Amino acid sequence: MFSSEIPDCNPTVSPRLYHICMAPVSVSTCQVLLIRSLARSPANFLEEEGNRGLVAAVFGILFSSLCVLVLDRDPLPLIAHSSQSSRGKAKYWKILALLYYPAFYYPLIACATVRHRVSYLVGCLLSWCHCVVHIWQKVDCPQSPKIYRYYSTLSYIPIILCLVLLSLWYPALLIRSFTGNSSSRSTEKPLPAIHPCRISLGKSQLMFDTPPLPVPVLSLGCLLWLLGWVDLQPAPAFPRDPVSQLLPDTPLPFCLTGFRIPLKLVLSITTAVLAVYQVALLLLVAVVPTIQIVRAGMTKDIVILLVQFGLVPSESPAVPGDMEKELNTVKYYLWSLEVCYICSLVLCCLLTCAMLLRTLVMHRNNLKALYQGAVLDVFYKAHILRPSRQAIVCWMSFAAFQTAFACLGLLIQQVIFFICSVGFTFLFIIPLQSGTNTYLFKIFQNMWPFWLTLVVAVIVQNLAAHYQFLEQHPLRKELTNRRALYIVTYLLFPINVLVGVLAGVWRMVISGLYNAVHFSQLDISLLNRSVETFDPGYHTYCHYLKIEVSQSHPVMKAFCLLLLQLARPEGPPGLRASNVEEGIQLMQPKKAPPSRTRFKQSRARWWLAYTLLNNPSLTACRKTALSDPTANGTQLSSPKP
Amino acid sequence: MFSSEIPDCNPTVSPRLYHICMAPVSVSTCQVLLIRSLARSPANFLEEEGNRGLVAAVFGILFSSLCVLVLDRDPLPLIAHSSQSSRGKAKYWKILALLYYPAFYYPLIACATVRHRVSYLVGCLLSWCHCVVHIWQKVDCPQSPKIYRYYSTLSYIPIILCLVLLSLWYPALLIRSFTGNSSSRSTEKPLPAIHPCRISLGKSQLMFDTPPLPVPVLSLGCLLWLLGWVDLQPAPAFPRDPVSQLLPDTPLPFCLTGFRIPLKLVLSITTAVLAVYQVALLLLVAVVPTIQIVRAGMTKDIVILLVQFGLVPSESPAVPGDMEKELNTVKYYLWSLEVCYICSLVLCCLLTCAMLLRTLVMHRNNLKALYQGAVLDVFYKAHILRPSRQAIVCWMSFAAFQTAFACLGLLIQQVIFFICSVGFTFLFIIPLQSGTNTYLFKIFQNMWPFWLTLVVAVIVQNLAAHYQFLEQHPLRKELTNRRALYIVTYLLFPINVLVGVLAGVWRMVISGLYNAVHFSQLDISLLNRSVETFDPGYHTYCHYLKIEVSQSHPVMKAFCLLLLQLARPEGPPGLRASNVEEGIQLMQPKKAPPSRTRFKQSRARWWLAYTLLNNPSLTACRKTALSDPTANGTQLSSPKP
Repeated sequence: MFSSEIPDCNPTVSPRLYHICMAPVSVSTCQVLLIRSLARSPANFLEEEGNRGLVAAVFGILFSSLCVLVLDRDPLPLIAHSSQSSRGKAKYWKILALLYYPAFYYPLIACATVRHRVSYLVGCLLSWCHCVVHIWQKVDCPQSPKIYRYYSTLSYIPIILCLVLLSLWYPALLIRSFTGNSSSRSTEKPLPAIHPCRISLGKSQLMFDTPPLPVPVLSLGCLLWLLGWVDLQPAPAFPRDPVSQLLPDTPLPFCLTGFRIPLKLVLSITTAVLAVYQVALLLLVAVVPTIQIVRAGMTKDIVILLVQFGLVPSESPAVPGDMEKELNTVKYYLWSLEVCYICSLVLCCLLTCAMLLRTLVMHRNNLKALYQGAVLDVFYKAHILRPSRQAIVCWMSFAAFQTAFACLGLLIQQVIFFICSVGFTFLFIIPLQSGTNTYLFKIFQNMWPFWLTLVVAVIVQNLAAHYQFLEQHPLRKELTNRRALYIVTYLLFPINVLVGVLAGVWRMVISGLYNAVHFSQLDISLLNRSVETFDPGYHTYCHYLKIEVSQSHPVMKAFCLLLLQLARPEGPPGLRASNVEEGIQLMQPKKAPPSRTRFKQSRARWWLAYTLLNNPSLTACRKTALSDPTANGTQLSSPKP
Repeated sequence: MFSSEIPDCNPTVSPRLYHICMAPVSVSTCQVLLIRSLARSPANFLEEEGNRGLVAAVFGILFSSLCVLVLDRDPLPLIAHSSQSSRGKAKYWKILALLYYPAFYYPLIACATVRHRVSYLVGCLLSWCHCVVHIWQKVDCPQSPKIYRYYSTLSYIPIILCLVLLSLWYPALLIRSFTGNSSSRSTEKPLPAIHPCRISLGKSQLMFDTPPLPVPVLSLGCLLWLLGWVDLQPAPAFPRDPVSQLLPDTPLPFCLTGFRIPLKLVLSITTAVLAVYQVALLLLVAVVPTIQIVRAGMTKDIVILLVQFGLVPSESPAVPGDMEKELNTVKYYLWSLEVCYICSLVLCCLLTCAMLLRTLVMHRNNLKALYQGAVLDVFYKAHILRPSRQAIVCWMSFAAFQTAFACLGLLIQQVIFFICSVGFTFLFIIPLQSGTNTYLFKIFQNMWPFWLTLVVAVIVQNLAAHYQFLEQHPLRKELTNRRALYIVTYLLFPINVLVGVLAGVWRMVISGLYNAVHFSQLDISLLNRSVETFDPGYHTYCHYLKIEVSQSHPVMKAFCLLLLQLARPEGPPGLRASNVEEGIQLMQPKKAPPSRTRFKQSRARWWLAYTLLNNPSLTACRKTALSDPTANGTQLSSPKP
């Protein structure tokens, strides 16, 4: 009905031409990067600490390509006529495309990972090229017949935005590699000045010195603070930092935390947000234009049919000529349906995004607790935190699962909320407005003595329990009037069964709603605590946490770094020094003088620990070892400098 | 269609006459019992220990009356023409009936509670009267036009069975009151001989001496044992007890436990089982006869319509005369529908009953744990076990909630299982049989490369994780080949998203099924552990447990009994002595010589504790107090006799 109006459109750079040109370029770039082996391996991207945004952008491109691919008739533009081939072959191309796209975009990550001026230049060129071609294609042909005329363009927006980010990121990296104050190999940012900024993290009350945070992170922090998910404590005796000078309304410098969210989680949240966008877009364009077309094309003949079926109230059902009022009613109903749909979709998106933010907060708390060994604060049963086959598989699929769960969660929520909002509108709001279809009100009117009885019974039981059956001793409450209690229990049994039916309905509603709202959160189980690991999402999250904790404990990382620095004293102390800071802070839960001496003292402790590890025989001569026979060389938490 | 065939029927004793005669009798009985105040108060029925079956039967009658009442047009037969009055008034009579029926049946409990020969006689007469009238009514008029011709009779069966139980129980009580070996006031059963019979209860490993169990309890025990819910340990060196002599196939005497399930729980399980019966009956008679009638009345005209809608496959849709084959197909489909409905109903009933049995086992374990102070074994967070307003209200409504939840749980399960079984039948079994409607097979056939890809990807990841990414140190597994791990993670990201979608569907299915199956269990929460008390069922259960534990701790009961015995040394040592046993066993978790001396020794300990409580100054002079400065008079667990 509306796809016929869209003219056939062939972009100047056809997708086929684009892939035929770019695929060999990508492959050769990969080969060069792998063979030349410049500064670093191009495969280290998942432990990258500098260019997290860049890696996240590439994963975003990858996921958006997957979304486009699933619905596309032409899955692999590289192959001639893959769209014209039979449907049987198209599905093989689709499966092949699942592996093709990651390889196609791989150079965009690899160029940043090797950290070399030439690779930055190649990354620049590649990202510009991809970006320009995509924008050009969409400017040439903004409309397509698929689902909705602008659907194709709208679904490409995340890809284009990610490519724009890459096109700006690579030049910035390249420029910094020229203007950097260190050698060409160490392009890392210098360690930012440390500000004493505090945050109380639940029970742990750790102190964190953090660099000033950029404005988007600050706004996110404000949002989280508004939602009550973090406590922010301003550092009182500290001058205004640069960020709060930029934001004069911010009363005192505050910061979220010095805690670094793992890259894998950043990726999963990025792709999950993109998933929310893509699913919401699909839900929107698949339904709303259709409703609008139906509304515009509504005729009096259809209205007569609807009136005859009793779906639309009418005062004159016998006169087909005079249906103006009923036609307007039908149009109003359709408009209400549309409004309900859009409102519930907006609500779902906001809820899913809020749950994703909550995942971040939960994850930070969980990691903090596990770093400090409080396994039972996180898991219901004790776990051994070490890699295993299952844990590695779960770590590999974590980001993908988070993304898929966000998609499904949004869908489920949309179904539930749409039904609820339609029910609310058509059973409550429209009857209130028009005075027709007042079924719900009639039921309530008929049933009010019943509801009143139940409410009175519950109130009577509460009052009796408080004033009659509970003896209020000053020290301890005690049961009294037992015989009256038994008689009341017996007499109210039938009424309590009816109250129980209502409680059961509430149980059903609340468990259904809770599970639907929290579906996209992997960090909580939807099952009872005794069987919680049967939930595939929670299972994946638990194993993912094990790998994260066992592989990236800040104390371990700091220790490794110090070992490396000792081995290469001329090496760059740059970015990695933040690990030392984090490790030291975790080892020192008590308040310490916020001065530079603390860092030196801590470093001295690390060296001591290193010396003791290399010379275990010295341990026996130490003061603490002499007083405590069970202590040995691993007592890192209380060595005397 | 089928109610017109049922003749009008007026029973000889009309319900109105029955209630007009029996209501004054009930009221006057209550008055006499209350005013005369015979041996015991008639209100103590909920701490009754001898006649638990009797109390349960009365609650069963009450609940069945409620079921009949909810659907009845004539809620209060006492009032003239309550059925002929307007619908507006009928609902007030219904509400009044909710309070009338408990009062009407109250004498049946009260007569047993006062424990007097005269009251037993009155109870006999009353129960016989009720029983005879009900049976007479149903023999007179077995059919009624309501829902299904035999529905009314079938729904009265539980009432009649409970009344039959009462009609046998009261004469037995009366006879025992004459033949009893003690005075007329102590009609309690003598303490049964104690057999050393052991059962290991999870972690606690308590030893329990129990009386031999009756055959139904033994069968229940066998069932539980088959289901793996309890461990039965035969007492090896013990001669065959009377029960196992009755059952020669039982290899060794074994018993469930000496643990006494609280009366309130017995009531709730009884009414819940009756609820399952009533709901299943209603579901059965509301649907199955209708399907049968539709099947019998199916004509070729309707078949043509169904064929035109594409619901029934047909090879010759244009010839209306020759529809014999299609008619048979439609009848076969309707028969399949009926079979699915009945099968799913049977499955639901079995599942709900199994969950109720499981509730019993869980409850026993929970009570045991709480008696021993292991609060965190039962609750996720620490609770204070003492009465409160909320706890009393929850205790009052517990049995009613359990009943209502069983009803709702059965309904939800029936809906889900019926949909699943219909889907399975019509998408899988019937296409396999007839070769038509093979949509599902076609989808599978079309999608197999896709499924294969997902399976291969998962297997590859598992194999790679095991052989490539995990270094198998002898002591400790460690991550290795990180770069390959990162590349595989990146390349398989799109495929893992699709795997994640399947995992998400599984998450949805498993959480929905788990919640539906466990809906009738109040002792587990359907919500995540952090918010589990928002579940109204679990909330009620937790508070109910608090009251049970704080009011009926066996140690406390035994201690109270000993105090009472000291005050009245001539009093009956009868039934209550089992409390002493239970309390003593709970205090003595270690193995003890299974002889009569143990009981004497324990009693000596109790007297010692009692002496010490009354003379706290003596505590300081005791041997253990002198050696341990922190011990005081409450060290009941290790006093020296």
